[in-house]
Amino acid sequence: MAQQYSSVLLEKAVNEFAKLPGIGRKTAMRLVLHLLRQDTSMVEAFSNALVTLKHEIKYCKKCHNISDTDLCGICANPLREASVVCVVENIQDVMAIENTQQFKGLYHVLGGVISPVDGIGPSDLQIDTLVKRVEEGGIKEIIFALSPTMEGDTTNFFISRKLSGFDVKLSVIARGISIGDELEYTDEVTLGRSIVNRMPFTGIN
Amino acid sequence: MAQQYSSVLLEKAVNEFAKLPGIGRKTAMRLVLHLLRQDTSMVEAFSNALVTLKHEIKYCKKCHNISDTDLCGICANPLREASVVCVVENIQDVMAIENTQQFKGLYHVLGGVISPVDGIGPSDLQIDTLVKRVEEGGIKEIIFALSPTMEGDTTNFFISRKLSGFDVKLSVIARGISIGDELEYTDEVTLGRSIVNRMPFTGIN
Repeated sequence: MAQQYSSVLLEKAVNEFAKLPGIGRKTAMRLVLHLLRQDTSMVEAFSNALVTLKHEIKYCKKCHNISDTDLCGICANPLREASVVCVVENIQDVMAIENTQQFKGLYHVLGGVISPVDGIGPSDLQIDTLVKRVEEGGIKEIIFALSPTMEGDTTNFFISRKLSGFDVKLSVIARGISIGDELEYTDEVTLGRSIVNRMPFTGIN
Repeated sequence: MAQQYSSVLLEKAVNEFAKLPGIGRKTAMRLVLHLLRQDTSMVEAFSNALVTLKHEIKYCKKCHNISDTDLCGICANPLREASVVCVVENIQDVMAIENTQQFKGLYHVLGGVISPVDGIGPSDLQIDTLVKRVEEGGIKEIIFALSPTMEGDTTNFFISRKLSGFDVKLSVIARGISIGDELEYTDEVTLGRSIVNRMPFTGIN
């Protein structure tokens, strides 16, 4: 049965919130009532942040990361190693890798992975622009950092074929058991592969 | 460690979303990226609905329900029984009761319940205005529909004392086992009280 709202304005605001993924009508109502209890300035700041973002956001013309400028802060930084490019699925993955502070190269954001089931083919992704970057020269290594799934592996394979004619080293981020995991509870596939792909012991692995 | 954002605009929007209750930074990021994928008109509609609501919302001067007009749709409806007033904690409770389509009277929204732990006293609630409505006459029955908690019961008791001088019938919504519940899994307090407060069998209870 449809909810009875005592206010059309309230109903509209709840409807807008309920369009967001993972936000049901009860949660939407709770969020709207929370905003109603805040100062007008806070609600305006919330609203402005979204509209400004939508109007002014850019995507880096080099790596397709989200950016406030034509070239993102990472691509524009002369201290980053421009010869190493890490291929990721989306901008959350860029943030996750940046947070590790272990990578000093540049990125290339594909915007997804090849997934016939979801109707996503190579032409829907930023694969041609990656090939172009390699063609332009200066790139020595491409690191694949896609999810270790069927779709991620398919995409890695597709890109590796596209780059087969170039003198560029291809790597993939290490797969194995997570640091701190208990062997007993690790899934068989991961454990099996981590034995096959065992690494030389250095004392600080 | 602080998240690394490649865009200040993005960071601002995520920060605003993350201020909402129950929305963490990861969820905020997901919601913002979802809005970024939508049409500009959709983002503007979302934003406008919130600002308009905040600027134009009113509270019914009679029952304190949220409303677009000075008197809410329920209070203004001549077909509702003005002699029966149901006392509720908040506007979600009004909506919940309206959805049952079993109540034809008016409401009185307290805006909370007495809770010394949270620093909420009788003067923070719309209790005086309820007493005033009773004083003005025409009300035959007050139905308490607060949560069956210590705070709800305290509030019921406080209001009942305030109304003790008036010729008005006081009721409380029935408490007992939920329709469809299994007796075996019902908590002892509810089950015990539902035996003590047993009702005459009518065949359609």
